Amino acid sequence: MKQLNVSLGERSYPIFIGPGLCNLADVFKPYVRHKQVMIVSNETVSPLYELQLREALQGFEVDSVILPDGEAYKNWETLNQIFDALLEKEHSRQTTIIALGGGVVGDMAGFAAASYQRGVDFIQVPTTLLSQVDSSVGGKTGINHPLGKNMIGAFYQPRAVVIDTQSLQTLPAREVSAGLAEVIKYGLIRDEVFFTWLEEHIEALVALDPATLEQAIETSCACKADVVAADEREGGVRAILNLGHTFGHAIEAFCGYGNWLHGEAVGAGMMMAAQLSRLEGALSDQDVARIEVLLKRAGLPVCGPGEMKSDDYLRLMRLDKKVLDGEIRLVLLNRIGSAYVTDQYSATHFESVISGTASGQR
Amino acid sequence: MKQLNVSLGERSYPIFIGPGLCNLADVFKPYVRHKQVMIVSNETVSPLYELQLREALQGFEVDSVILPDGEAYKNWETLNQIFDALLEKEHSRQTTIIALGGGVVGDMAGFAAASYQRGVDFIQVPTTLLSQVDSSVGGKTGINHPLGKNMIGAFYQPRAVVIDTQSLQTLPAREVSAGLAEVIKYGLIRDEVFFTWLEEHIEALVALDPATLEQAIETSCACKADVVAADEREGGVRAILNLGHTFGHAIEAFCGYGNWLHGEAVGAGMMMAAQLSRLEGALSDQDVARIEVLLKRAGLPVCGPGEMKSDDYLRLMRLDKKVLDGEIRLVLLNRIGSAYVTDQYSATHFESVISGTASGQR
Repeated sequence: MKQLNVSLGERSYPIFIGPGLCNLADVFKPYVRHKQVMIVSNETVSPLYELQLREALQGFEVDSVILPDGEAYKNWETLNQIFDALLEKEHSRQTTIIALGGGVVGDMAGFAAASYQRGVDFIQVPTTLLSQVDSSVGGKTGINHPLGKNMIGAFYQPRAVVIDTQSLQTLPAREVSAGLAEVIKYGLIRDEVFFTWLEEHIEALVALDPATLEQAIETSCACKADVVAADEREGGVRAILNLGHTFGHAIEAFCGYGNWLHGEAVGAGMMMAAQLSRLEGALSDQDVARIEVLLKRAGLPVCGPGEMKSDDYLRLMRLDKKVLDGEIRLVLLNRIGSAYVTDQYSATHFESVISGTASGQR
Repeated sequence: MKQLNVSLGERSYPIFIGPGLCNLADVFKPYVRHKQVMIVSNETVSPLYELQLREALQGFEVDSVILPDGEAYKNWETLNQIFDALLEKEHSRQTTIIALGGGVVGDMAGFAAASYQRGVDFIQVPTTLLSQVDSSVGGKTGINHPLGKNMIGAFYQPRAVVIDTQSLQTLPAREVSAGLAEVIKYGLIRDEVFFTWLEEHIEALVALDPATLEQAIETSCACKADVVAADEREGGVRAILNLGHTFGHAIEAFCGYGNWLHGEAVGAGMMMAAQLSRLEGALSDQDVARIEVLLKRAGLPVCGPGEMKSDDYLRLMRLDKKVLDGEIRLVLLNRIGSAYVTDQYSATHFESVISGTASGQR
């Protein structure tokens, strides 16, 4: 078992990474303060892992609420199922909420924990690659609004993140690829050595080789933990974690949440960010090509849906949380391993990227 | 204009108190960071004060959303009207939400500010006595759930609180009394001198004498600011602010939110807490009598609704946020001016208070 730490003063917490952690009582016990526990999971993950987790929690009063599966359910109605369960089972302010599932479950359980009685403890047990390397770490929680993704939520840190790498063995290939989008992102924004390592190991990751996966998860979480520790509430550097996300959110919103997986939209979005970076003269042709090849080998799309027009991008991107006084701020790349945030870029270049006419785009 | 300060490190903020502040541009300008402003008000308050406030905000891009009036609307559906308005008008993460109204508007606008894009700035402009002396200060925000009051929310501090004492001149008498319940509470829990001052000035307050009101508001806010600064998230001493509230919340839930005003329920609840304190041997008969007389002179009820039985209290109080592992924690009084929090009290005494058979109860 490996342990990382997210350094946030009194809100610091550990990330545990290893196979089979999900049913180890000793991992959970120090982070559950009182006897009540509410497991929040979904109809796909619960049959696979809830029993294991309940065994690790023997001696506690454990209830659970099972949500429908999918980004389409990341809304108020589903969130309210968690509040209903907590109140019907009379959970007090001392309860601990455990999120068992992917990013959607973690985001909703986390926002429920932030809001129930104005804040109760919670623990993340992410079971998808995407949630293990990204959404379970850093305290971003929330739900979607019909007019925008993650528009309602809170910054709320868990007490611990427990990453059971064995849970990836049951993950569908499409979701593995979606998770790899965020893994590749860390190489792109901060770590060229890691990007090169990924070029050497991407097939092993796609094939779910346990040791390779564990190393990729550890490096990704360490990167995320560093960035979050430096800027918890995204006042500055944390924004680089959104590489590809402003384009990606527009794609997700256009297609209806859940039709494109988040990681798939981010994959296409990172490619668009790379294209724009190249047009802006910041990124070399060679780097753009390396990025495109790696995304494809990871099983990810490298352009948005064909039916999406530049007006669609514009309209949906203007609603992004990174829009400051009307200007669309984007994360661009200087080179592989170095990102920057800017609203200073050529409107012509931007237009050619979102209209799909930049050279190299199909 | 008087100014107090709530000392919470980087989350510190000023409270301004005085007549006519609502339309003074200089009061607001330093606390609005960017050009967008969303006024959240209700259908009763907006016609009286929104224009004044808009005049003070000339030069900003001001939108508003007008909610239905009343505690019965303090729910998700109404909260969502705020999110809808923010997104439809494309408010960015840099927007400022201004709550213009009573406690319900402030609680909902505050929770919307805490949750919109994971947190935007907000300013409280409380227009009722209750919200001026209590709910606008201290950062408690939230909405009700059918199974419990304020069960969903956040601790989220405003950037400033602007108390325009002139707005009380349009307040219905019943709401003035409800506000006085919280004013009396500060005397009971922390300040016998203030309680005695209230005994001397209660008729002037009921009659809305401006100078007397301003002094009562200032003393109340100073007390609240002290307690909140000592314990922002209610880990300890802040709980004494809930004197009468656990009983009161049960009354509100039983009668349906809004049928009893919050302050009325707190008035009856403080009387019940006083009765229990007397049975426990902590409070003298004479003090109980003083409390009852002052509550009555303030126009407040001194017992719960006749049709509410002890089982109703028990069931509804067990859902209170102050319940720790099943025990109902209460705020009791040692004497006028000194409160303590405890779950150690005689079940027989408690039963006789909630069944209305304690001596002196009707």
